[in-house]
Amino acid sequence: MEQISANKAFGGAQGIYRHASSATGTDMTFSVYVPPHEEGARLPVVWYLSGLTCSHANVTEKGEYRQACADLGLIFVAPDTSPRGEGVPDDPDGAYDFGLGAGFYVDATRRPYADHYAMWSYVTQELPALVAGHFPVDMERQGITGHSMGGHGALTIGLTHAHHFKSVSAFAPIVAPGQVPWGQKALAGYLGDDRALWRRHDAVALIEDGARVPALLVDQGDADPFLAEQLRPELLEQACAAAGIDLTLRLQPGYDHSYYFISTFMADHLRWHAARLT
Amino acid sequence: MEQISANKAFGGAQGIYRHASSATGTDMTFSVYVPPHEEGARLPVVWYLSGLTCSHANVTEKGEYRQACADLGLIFVAPDTSPRGEGVPDDPDGAYDFGLGAGFYVDATRRPYADHYAMWSYVTQELPALVAGHFPVDMERQGITGHSMGGHGALTIGLTHAHHFKSVSAFAPIVAPGQVPWGQKALAGYLGDDRALWRRHDAVALIEDGARVPALLVDQGDADPFLAEQLRPELLEQACAAAGIDLTLRLQPGYDHSYYFISTFMADHLRWHAARLT
Repeated sequence: MEQISANKAFGGAQGIYRHASSATGTDMTFSVYVPPHEEGARLPVVWYLSGLTCSHANVTEKGEYRQACADLGLIFVAPDTSPRGEGVPDDPDGAYDFGLGAGFYVDATRRPYADHYAMWSYVTQELPALVAGHFPVDMERQGITGHSMGGHGALTIGLTHAHHFKSVSAFAPIVAPGQVPWGQKALAGYLGDDRALWRRHDAVALIEDGARVPALLVDQGDADPFLAEQLRPELLEQACAAAGIDLTLRLQPGYDHSYYFISTFMADHLRWHAARLT
Repeated sequence: MEQISANKAFGGAQGIYRHASSATGTDMTFSVYVPPHEEGARLPVVWYLSGLTCSHANVTEKGEYRQACADLGLIFVAPDTSPRGEGVPDDPDGAYDFGLGAGFYVDATRRPYADHYAMWSYVTQELPALVAGHFPVDMERQGITGHSMGGHGALTIGLTHAHHFKSVSAFAPIVAPGQVPWGQKALAGYLGDDRALWRRHDAVALIEDGARVPALLVDQGDADPFLAEQLRPELLEQACAAAGIDLTLRLQPGYDHSYYFISTFMADHLRWHAARLT
């Protein structure tokens, strides 16, 4: 693991790191913020999964999470959204919603994506092991959140590995990729046309199929241009109601899909995670 | 004036705007954050001048000022750092520290820069008039701050127009451009070799020549790579001590020159301004 940069911020350390990933067969870049803490302490960690077109850099620069992490004693980890580099296949038309920057947090089984697009394994296994070995994290106290495609990742990973993640939240998540254009394109492209295989990567389907978490926090802007076609939080609301999951869904008036929205509610989410992790 | 973007953030409105500037003879872009406020209210305004290589965008994306501005009821305006566009001359060698992105907040008198590089007039006259006409600002309650080259701008403008700016602060400012390489190159390039003409654009020289403000707040990272050669806060400390200016100079251990440093202390600065403006 190579440290690309290190900057003191809010009394802690914001680092950016690169390593050779065996899951993706590429170099991968991620960022970690470690708040000020006592020598020898082990801190809870919140994973933040980013959305389409993003890398680790967007939330690291625009997410405004460091003040709250410093106040609450949380480590904050931001992975990339896909493998990158020579030999990594992209969308055939170079579209923004598939391929590079759009890994959708699945392990692809279809060629040519299967060789590198293993974001599920990367985010749930390889990167946690790496982070656990290099940072003062308490892996018994993990939370997960994310934005849009990354909200999809946070919900599906949190629902699947509920024993690992004591807190799960999302900003404007794709809650039912099997029912919306972004998700249908991605899941078909990475996993093929058998929709039964998609259900493990669809938060609403996972809940319908029995996955449970005690509680979820979701913020969604009502001026988000992707709300009605791609995000559809009402589907999550219905699934949670039927399953008895304590969903706090907040429709935020006037907010859009940008980091101006995310940063506004970031501290709320981190406090919500901290309440469950500390 | 054309609105390029508008995003709700922390209950207020972050906008980016473009207009044809008569001062620079180019289009100019700037950002304004207006916090939530009562209908008809007039709010104090803090001007933020950016550093070398930056535009309005760096602080708008990375400055983390919106939470504090919303809490304190401050409007925040971020201009660009130079004219830009076709026909605007740059550094002959394309260096980062002169020309585009490096206007140094002076009105250039040397050719070929005199035609467009009028950042002093732009920031002190044209843009305030535009902002006063379009946003709910109380122009009797203005503060000014900035970073590096923009800290130089904030100090020189604040000292020269002390009747307009009730509060002046800076992050890692160039306090004595006449005595350091960045400033000597810029002032010679824009104003020519007569060093007497530089003194109006040098905070330390302005104080030596009698300019006064009641108080200054300056934060400076002690791990800033430009500290010893370009920034030299001790020169400001000496000038303020001799002049009886109440300077709060905080050397922040471990902090560098980046927006990780600026964002860490942004809320402190905004509270300091608010205490003098509200």
